[in-house]
Amino acid sequence: MTPTTTPHSDRPLSTAEIVAVGTELLTPFRSDTNSLFLTAGLNELGIVVRRKSIVGDDGEDLAAAVRSALARVDLVVICGGLGPTEDDLTRETVAGVLERPLREDAAIVERLRARFARRGWEMPENNRRQARVPAGAVVLDNPRGTAPGLWLEHDGRVVVLLPGPPRELEPMFTGLIEGRLAARATGERLYRRVLRVAGRGESHVEERAQPVYERWRRADPAVETTVLASPGLVELHLSTRAGSASAAAAVLDGAAGELAEALGEHLFSADGRSLPEVVGALLARDGLRVAVGESCTGGLVTARLVDVPGSSGYVEAGVVAYSNAVKQAALGVPGAVIEAHGAVSEPVALAMAAGARRVGDADLGVGVTGVAGPGGGTDAKPVGTVCIAVVGPGGAESATTVRLPGDRAAIRGQAARVALDLLRRSLLRSGGELAGLRRG
Amino acid sequence: MTPTTTPHSDRPLSTAEIVAVGTELLTPFRSDTNSLFLTAGLNELGIVVRRKSIVGDDGEDLAAAVRSALARVDLVVICGGLGPTEDDLTRETVAGVLERPLREDAAIVERLRARFARRGWEMPENNRRQARVPAGAVVLDNPRGTAPGLWLEHDGRVVVLLPGPPRELEPMFTGLIEGRLAARATGERLYRRVLRVAGRGESHVEERAQPVYERWRRADPAVETTVLASPGLVELHLSTRAGSASAAAAVLDGAAGELAEALGEHLFSADGRSLPEVVGALLARDGLRVAVGESCTGGLVTARLVDVPGSSGYVEAGVVAYSNAVKQAALGVPGAVIEAHGAVSEPVALAMAAGARRVGDADLGVGVTGVAGPGGGTDAKPVGTVCIAVVGPGGAESATTVRLPGDRAAIRGQAARVALDLLRRSLLRSGGELAGLRRG
Repeated sequence: MTPTTTPHSDRPLSTAEIVAVGTELLTPFRSDTNSLFLTAGLNELGIVVRRKSIVGDDGEDLAAAVRSALARVDLVVICGGLGPTEDDLTRETVAGVLERPLREDAAIVERLRARFARRGWEMPENNRRQARVPAGAVVLDNPRGTAPGLWLEHDGRVVVLLPGPPRELEPMFTGLIEGRLAARATGERLYRRVLRVAGRGESHVEERAQPVYERWRRADPAVETTVLASPGLVELHLSTRAGSASAAAAVLDGAAGELAEALGEHLFSADGRSLPEVVGALLARDGLRVAVGESCTGGLVTARLVDVPGSSGYVEAGVVAYSNAVKQAALGVPGAVIEAHGAVSEPVALAMAAGARRVGDADLGVGVTGVAGPGGGTDAKPVGTVCIAVVGPGGAESATTVRLPGDRAAIRGQAARVALDLLRRSLLRSGGELAGLRRG
Repeated sequence: MTPTTTPHSDRPLSTAEIVAVGTELLTPFRSDTNSLFLTAGLNELGIVVRRKSIVGDDGEDLAAAVRSALARVDLVVICGGLGPTEDDLTRETVAGVLERPLREDAAIVERLRARFARRGWEMPENNRRQARVPAGAVVLDNPRGTAPGLWLEHDGRVVVLLPGPPRELEPMFTGLIEGRLAARATGERLYRRVLRVAGRGESHVEERAQPVYERWRRADPAVETTVLASPGLVELHLSTRAGSASAAAAVLDGAAGELAEALGEHLFSADGRSLPEVVGALLARDGLRVAVGESCTGGLVTARLVDVPGSSGYVEAGVVAYSNAVKQAALGVPGAVIEAHGAVSEPVALAMAAGARRVGDADLGVGVTGVAGPGGGTDAKPVGTVCIAVVGPGGAESATTVRLPGDRAAIRGQAARVALDLLRRSLLRSGGELAGLRRG
């Protein structure tokens, strides 16, 4: 069967499909993550991904996917199936669909032999398969593996073959593909900005933000907004298609500025930074050090803070105190406070925060105590009840009680987020004045 | 265009395609996770997933995907696009492909009205769209949302429409779809067993395991093995297709038993349990309590232990001590030990473990100190160097130093895994004798 597409060479590339190949991607245990990386790169070049497909190591299924993609889009990116075994059918299948003969490329064989020789091995005969190249293809060197990539043009369309492992695919895309695609793209690129909001739900954020982003949707260039909500976090993804970074920045800055005003202190990041990064930057700005005392979150608040490179400059200590005995012994929570208010209470959260601050000889202390479930809930304090406190120098303190939905993992994750957000708000409100009171 | 499939009703369902619908799934920010859940459920029924597709909110693209899937497989599961807005095109598109008229279902309208009324709201007129049903469809009630699912039969094939949100889709699949599919499946099911190995790399595990699983591949019923490796963890997924659970158990038990023997104490789980679950069960078995002192892992070891429900019974305390001052103050690490050996050393890890054990008044202490990077590495102790120690009653102790590859997050994750594994091996080797020495 001859391809039914009509020739129209050098048309700009504006639409793409991504085809992932591998029977393991059709099991419950593996998902295709390459397409997220590739989509980000393609979108930046103004190329929209119209469809993604995942097929097994099956020549017929792969051929059908490639054929139908070629009928729909300008660019087909195929990932995987370039290994040396008989299961790896991508080269042969694409050559068949495009009706190109396969020839062994002597230069690739030489590079493969040299690669094996550097490790003191002889090249297995199998690997010769990886040197087979459809006529007219550009070979893309793979410095991190044995499978070279391939770039083919066909009736004005482009087909790119890349190896499946992300650590091979990613540098090849960035180093060898992106530039070639840019030369063939429309010239307009997609620019993005991510705004993050904590402590308010999706509908609250929508209510405040919608009038703003409706207005910017009609700007020129237009700003598109996507709202992504997960428990305790709402993200506004702004994007605009523009001919230059400065034209994009002008509208994105305008839209982000108005959204920041509408959302007030609930907006914690307008530059893509995460909550622990923002908290860390505030601590570093003010030269303050923090210590954490946790019960139900079991170390998660500390772990999130410590995830950030450079956090050893401001995270002093973290204490996980599950039992009442350890709350008393390690954090100095008075037994009488536990008895009077219960282990899950704001006074205990405050005492844990004060204890952590003392143990770590820190400027600020954070305390978290709650019922993460599945057991341990009561009528007065059901599963999901979490008390959170922040204690600072000069007697500054704030505490809050929240009821969080979901299972144990969800409750713990949200509680950690609320704790980090309370710390952020405390640092914001102090406006640097806590710094004047900090410990030597 | 009339469908070109030939009628052949009541043939058993053995192959499936999954189509995910939603433009947000074609951005770099969201991936389709429903298909992993659905694949697990379908595989259990002996139904193989042959292809997965992701299309945007575009009627033409969706129609093409459904049409080509119907030409290839017995079952098409379509997720998403059942909402009340104009973007939600799945009902209309599928009705068009199958050439069925759409009618409003009065019972669905009634349920939707009642659902809104329970919240004190009036049903928006938009939601009537969700009551439109292709002729001949079975309506599947959605207790967690407004979008009902649909089950359609067409020329012996089955098309299922499910809402996109996992918390709606998952109970609907389990409660309403699985039984219907089982009645139409081949009668053979896929049974799985997962074996997990810590502390040994993929090639080591392959070398020991391959002779065993090669043998079982030729058994009747055959056992297929997939090896999945991630940093610090190797999983062997065994599966067999059998007519009954007992027939499957016979071969899976046999294969798992031989693999357990070949892998020795490196195998930590043959029943799907995670490392923290296995460690927790050993601690609970022996009535022992643990406390953790961590530096570079920043609370991750404690957080992993505490992830397990019921862990408050054996996790006593966790202390994150970053600076040398806090290592001394909170964990009682002697300054002289730090000076003599450096903060990243086995003697300091042992002293941290002993300190955590003392602070938590626990039976066992775990200590972790290392260089997670990106800064802080030296020639003698490069980034990735981590020292880990376990201290038990009666002077029992063990310590190890590892060099872990990857970035900060990868190093911390692997270090936590090595620490949990060292704790597991200590508990195994003691064979319960530590229990005799435990603290009151």
